[in-house]
Amino acid sequence: MNKELEYKRHTLAHLLAAAVMELYPDTKRTIGPAVDNGFYFDFEFSTPVTEKDFPAIEKKMRNLLPSWTSFEKHELSAEDAKAEYPDNPYKHELIEEFTAEGQKVSFYKSGSYWDLCRGGHLENPAKEIAPDSFKLDRVAGAYWRGDEKNTMLTRIYGLAFDTKEELDAYQAQREEAKKRDHRKIGKELDLFTFSELVGPGLPLWTPKGTLVRHLLDGYVWELREKYGYERVTIPHITKRDLYEKSGHWEKFADELFRIKTREDKEFALKPMNCPHHTQIFDRHPHSYRDMPQRFAETTMVYRDEQSGELGGLTRVLSITQDDSHVFCRHSQVKDEYFKIWDIVDTFYGTFGFNLKVRLSFHDPKSPEKYLGNADIWKNAEDALRDIAKERKADYVEAPGEAAMYGPKLDFMAVDSMRREHQVATIQLDMNLPERFDLHCINEQGEKERIVMVHCAIMGSIERFSAVLLEHLAGVLPLWLAPVQVRVLPVSDKHTEYAKVVATKLKEARIRAEVDEANDSLGKKIRQSKVEKIPYFLVIGDKEVEANTVTVESRDKGNLGTENVEALILNLREDIDSRAR
Amino acid sequence: MNKELEYKRHTLAHLLAAAVMELYPDTKRTIGPAVDNGFYFDFEFSTPVTEKDFPAIEKKMRNLLPSWTSFEKHELSAEDAKAEYPDNPYKHELIEEFTAEGQKVSFYKSGSYWDLCRGGHLENPAKEIAPDSFKLDRVAGAYWRGDEKNTMLTRIYGLAFDTKEELDAYQAQREEAKKRDHRKIGKELDLFTFSELVGPGLPLWTPKGTLVRHLLDGYVWELREKYGYERVTIPHITKRDLYEKSGHWEKFADELFRIKTREDKEFALKPMNCPHHTQIFDRHPHSYRDMPQRFAETTMVYRDEQSGELGGLTRVLSITQDDSHVFCRHSQVKDEYFKIWDIVDTFYGTFGFNLKVRLSFHDPKSPEKYLGNADIWKNAEDALRDIAKERKADYVEAPGEAAMYGPKLDFMAVDSMRREHQVATIQLDMNLPERFDLHCINEQGEKERIVMVHCAIMGSIERFSAVLLEHLAGVLPLWLAPVQVRVLPVSDKHTEYAKVVATKLKEARIRAEVDEANDSLGKKIRQSKVEKIPYFLVIGDKEVEANTVTVESRDKGNLGTENVEALILNLREDIDSRAR
Repeated sequence: MNKELEYKRHTLAHLLAAAVMELYPDTKRTIGPAVDNGFYFDFEFSTPVTEKDFPAIEKKMRNLLPSWTSFEKHELSAEDAKAEYPDNPYKHELIEEFTAEGQKVSFYKSGSYWDLCRGGHLENPAKEIAPDSFKLDRVAGAYWRGDEKNTMLTRIYGLAFDTKEELDAYQAQREEAKKRDHRKIGKELDLFTFSELVGPGLPLWTPKGTLVRHLLDGYVWELREKYGYERVTIPHITKRDLYEKSGHWEKFADELFRIKTREDKEFALKPMNCPHHTQIFDRHPHSYRDMPQRFAETTMVYRDEQSGELGGLTRVLSITQDDSHVFCRHSQVKDEYFKIWDIVDTFYGTFGFNLKVRLSFHDPKSPEKYLGNADIWKNAEDALRDIAKERKADYVEAPGEAAMYGPKLDFMAVDSMRREHQVATIQLDMNLPERFDLHCINEQGEKERIVMVHCAIMGSIERFSAVLLEHLAGVLPLWLAPVQVRVLPVSDKHTEYAKVVATKLKEARIRAEVDEANDSLGKKIRQSKVEKIPYFLVIGDKEVEANTVTVESRDKGNLGTENVEALILNLREDIDSRAR
Repeated sequence: MNKELEYKRHTLAHLLAAAVMELYPDTKRTIGPAVDNGFYFDFEFSTPVTEKDFPAIEKKMRNLLPSWTSFEKHELSAEDAKAEYPDNPYKHELIEEFTAEGQKVSFYKSGSYWDLCRGGHLENPAKEIAPDSFKLDRVAGAYWRGDEKNTMLTRIYGLAFDTKEELDAYQAQREEAKKRDHRKIGKELDLFTFSELVGPGLPLWTPKGTLVRHLLDGYVWELREKYGYERVTIPHITKRDLYEKSGHWEKFADELFRIKTREDKEFALKPMNCPHHTQIFDRHPHSYRDMPQRFAETTMVYRDEQSGELGGLTRVLSITQDDSHVFCRHSQVKDEYFKIWDIVDTFYGTFGFNLKVRLSFHDPKSPEKYLGNADIWKNAEDALRDIAKERKADYVEAPGEAAMYGPKLDFMAVDSMRREHQVATIQLDMNLPERFDLHCINEQGEKERIVMVHCAIMGSIERFSAVLLEHLAGVLPLWLAPVQVRVLPVSDKHTEYAKVVATKLKEARIRAEVDEANDSLGKKIRQSKVEKIPYFLVIGDKEVEANTVTVESRDKGNLGTENVEALILNLREDIDSRAR
């Protein structure tokens, strides 16, 4: 947020407090900062205030606003400052802290309201704030200073933007995002579930959800296989020794799930796959002729996240990565990046994501933060920049954003709601090959240090699934829909023919099922729509007689009557081409 | 082992000690029992005895044998007994233990040798032991009483069978088993590896090994899919709560890998998948119309085994199970067993395993060991017996071998060396549905308790891989071979055409590669044989000219010259039919 907007939001926090103090004079006010999308203020009310009271408070804010034509700063001693807040222990606590070394504290005044404050306001709120560009949003409980041992205060949140249009746009987008919330869609489409007994952050994937995961992962694998990737398999645990050598034991300190065995040995659940993969590469010596070696594995990694941070699929404890590691020579890096980029482009293009590219480079002013010498870095970064230019990518350079072991090429997917998500990343690693002494024997018969290229296409399948479901509002393309066609017999006597139709579809590897429930056609259709099934076929007397089906498409509406064979041809074409 | 053979082996342990005491009189003898395949005796020698000394010891044993025509029992007081073993602290320790309550100890004498012993010998060794039916085998170190704080003794192992023929057969089979050791074959075929840093019991699967795993698992899935199974996906960890409810927290006490999170919560690595799967089933209510629900998942489970018990792939810490759980009504159990049995038959038949069946029933004399009433057990066991009879299976009943929650149907695969391995198992579970309150709504609109059928086809993919590699001596059938065809250009100038051939094969989805190494044809052929590649194609001037290939089959020898298209047709037929 720019400074102007931050000042505006902070000013509105004052205005909110001013309105509240006029309406509820015995309230104890505390603090109120600007936040993303608006502002908040925490109060201790003597009678509960709820969202029902917002119209009155907003009205008061708008009434006060014209009188707020300037901000004046005043400096008070601790004693004088405290006298401003009789019976308000929160303000007294703040004043004592701010004046611990005898300084004065600053107050800011606008209109007839003033408050203890460090500053950061608009110069002329009355002129600079459009009365329709802000809005009170919601009430929440918040402990004083975020500590659950303290009193629970009432926090009033407000939204504030530069203009009414931006405020409206934000609200509309938020409304849309709520409708598209992957947790809601995941339930409607019956893709995943959570269990109290298993715990938050540990999604359980239903048959339909697992099918979607397999289709997505199978697609990535299909693309990778073309470029010479091979799958490997590793256990999910390891002796501590591996991570001491790789540096993860130290680096992943808090996030590492540690295990003590019955023999009192220390093990860990893997937070990454790279150290294990080095051990497969290093099982025997490699000639330069064998390079590159491209290992791929879709497997879970584990991070001990704080439970407060877990939510739906976006932050989980067990993360399924479609991970890969290319072990190659320095001279092969560019080529390998190109291959991965092709895969990323094809994969994300299939879903209509636009991609932005960020080149995360090292900071030449802090060489001590990185491994390897300046030449290696220059070569690697030049290669990345060349690749980005050659692909005519819309890229930005981000110096200081590299990993300690090498520069990164990060892909940001822009979704249908214009939100950006960091998705695939390609990392050039000169560190692990050093730590694990990985090499090949070159043309001269000498050991040559190799490099590793880390890459995940979806990244976390959980997170990608959430992004994809929200991007598509749950409208999965035909090839990805768990049920592609549902056959709806109008009544019991049409079931037999419905089954014949479904069997024909299944023989053509189309995921079809018959809705045999004892429900009305209307209810069956509504259910198919909730589940966002791409096609449903209505089977009544007419269809049985003419040996046809009546086709309803989720995306194109009623397509009229067709024979099954023609329908199969059309569907298979869309499935095989992964049409959007 | 039968009593007769056990007595013979124990008698031979005495005979070994007698021979040793004559040849090395200052030896301290300790104990010597019968074991599987023979016997052993532990000694403290004053000078080292090695396998080089075996001929002399065996000769002495055979010299003594004719004088061993009976066994006499003598009873001695502790004092007298100790006097028999001056300076032998081992025997003194035993005598003190045996006579702690004032009893006498027994000695057994044959020929002129006697020893402290509890009995269990042949009546007339000279007559009953064929001198060529036993053999000294090997020397090993062994701590006194198996405690590493004690002195290391020298253990001499002997082999002993009823006849020379059986002894020879055992040795031949052991020799063959050594050649077929899956650890040796796994290395030659480059299927898996172990790393010191990751630890024993944690195999790392190479690209070729992973391909074999995927092909095996894909085959099981293909069979299951036909019978309406659906895949699900679960995380590998859970809160403690799940296992408290399921009973695993208590039952798997020592073997459970426990985790403390950063927030001090208790988690566990899953030792089984069933509790997680119940949570997917139970995500919403089910109508009887939705039953059965068949969940399949190939995933790793974890058991905290003692490190001394780990070896190759047969005992690992992370076990990949091709697990499945059918949630069904009591009335559907038989049908579901039939389906699984079909899958098991097809799968094991493909590899030429003969299957035996064991019905593991409950022990009616100990009803307290089981859950559920007698009627339920009778019905379930009757159903299993009916199924076994209907399939004309070669089955045995094993009362007392049931799981606490229900009877099992276990499959034993008999391998090419006539060894039996317990492989697939189908378990009927009435316990977890009770603990997790799993039900469906039946035709009357009432809650109906359901049952679970647990089944793994391969069981542990690691263990099955070991069994399969040893059964086949590494000669994987064409469909399962990681490299199906290797193309061997005689010299550099044939490489281009070799690549054309390989490309044609690959386009027909045949796993082919060109051996471009700078080696002689002889060396390339030898390498292909070590790797047990099903086909290699030799490409020289003649083949390039005639646009053909010369085909060598691993199993059928030289097949002469063919054109590539004809070869492809033959190979694809064998692959698609999974020919042996």
